[in-house]
Amino acid sequence: MELKVYKKEYEYSYSLGAFPTIELLKNRLDDVVEVIIHSSFDNKEVLDTIKSLLPKDKIRYSDKLVSKLSDKGNCFIIGVFKKYKSNLSDSDHILFDNPSNMGNLGTMIRSALGFNIKNIAIIKPGLDYFDPKVIRASMGSIFSVNIEFFDTLTDYKKKYNNHTIYSFMLDGKCDLRDVEFKANPLTLAFGNEATGLSSEYLDDNSIYIKHSKNIDSLNITNALSIALYEYSKNNF
Amino acid sequence: MELKVYKKEYEYSYSLGAFPTIELLKNRLDDVVEVIIHSSFDNKEVLDTIKSLLPKDKIRYSDKLVSKLSDKGNCFIIGVFKKYKSNLSDSDHILFDNPSNMGNLGTMIRSALGFNIKNIAIIKPGLDYFDPKVIRASMGSIFSVNIEFFDTLTDYKKKYNNHTIYSFMLDGKCDLRDVEFKANPLTLAFGNEATGLSSEYLDDNSIYIKHSKNIDSLNITNALSIALYEYSKNNF
Repeated sequence: MELKVYKKEYEYSYSLGAFPTIELLKNRLDDVVEVIIHSSFDNKEVLDTIKSLLPKDKIRYSDKLVSKLSDKGNCFIIGVFKKYKSNLSDSDHILFDNPSNMGNLGTMIRSALGFNIKNIAIIKPGLDYFDPKVIRASMGSIFSVNIEFFDTLTDYKKKYNNHTIYSFMLDGKCDLRDVEFKANPLTLAFGNEATGLSSEYLDDNSIYIKHSKNIDSLNITNALSIALYEYSKNNF
Repeated sequence: MELKVYKKEYEYSYSLGAFPTIELLKNRLDDVVEVIIHSSFDNKEVLDTIKSLLPKDKIRYSDKLVSKLSDKGNCFIIGVFKKYKSNLSDSDHILFDNPSNMGNLGTMIRSALGFNIKNIAIIKPGLDYFDPKVIRASMGSIFSVNIEFFDTLTDYKKKYNNHTIYSFMLDGKCDLRDVEFKANPLTLAFGNEATGLSSEYLDDNSIYIKHSKNIDSLNITNALSIALYEYSKNNF
């Protein structure tokens, strides 16, 4: 297989760097095509882990290929994997309606896992969550969560009609500080970075996070973290 | 004055983009050298604001200069300002010990302002907080806060000996969920992205934010937001 710089339409993608690649191997070993290693990489612990998990013919040494496939410097290990589909389990979800920034999505997937939510619904269009930029920002967390696309909120609600949705919006009805996340299962919903959630989401469970008037809004990754922190009080 | 691509040693810096430039004009008008506008910029409201605040001879139209000074595309307005010094007031502070990422620092300054903390102490080495990357990530919030450098934590404590310091560390003594931020004035302290705070900070007021074992640590901007959210409960 000739490997090329990542494009959305490919059936495979890459984990760039040692940390995400180890997460790939630990969580999605069956989907790994190969691991490519740069000759200057000398972290013995990582190399031993790779060798203990993968057969020899799936480990390739090629400085040229590592340079070609990585977008930045200081990447010495690349995991190549077949893209896979996953379905959400029926425990708690996070829903992102049309997220548009790769780095933010990756960071938010890491936060989700950090507070034990392993199911991520994305309302289209959204973005290509297997883009190496998302994987890198997630620090490999993406390989421990389920992600499922939905055409519309209605489709999501139809499939997960037992979930109570708490939507985070600037004009939400409840102050987060007063909310107890007692519903089970539940979904925490967040909108696009620029436009937020549409009025379709506005109901009695919608939530705002109070901040000063000095700024227009909180950064979305920060808003999610605050929500997850409050959510975690009832969960661990 | 011939303007060049920003370097740390220069006595002036740039706000790249309309939003940060308007914040510059509103908050630090006396330090503004000039504003440079690209001919394709046509947001009338922004243009009117600039014209109402600045005399004609401080407004320059130059497509070439805008392209030269901005590091990315989609920047059509640049504010040029003399760097200034500020001292912290005696109300609550955030302290960053050797922050190393421009984008993170900017985002965190915005979060600080979002929860009404307007005083930022930085323990050296830290980084150049007037770098345009910090300013852009702060969305211009940096022009509404005071920032002061200190050589060491000891120097900071000597100057602000009435502040109670709450240090955020993975091995902190208190669960954030149990902390009431009653001290007045207080300081919330955060460490370097990679190394955190040293044991110098570990005392009975040190705090950890509980998260799952699935991740090593929270992203620092997210940890700060969670801390500020909890802090704000006693403040607004």
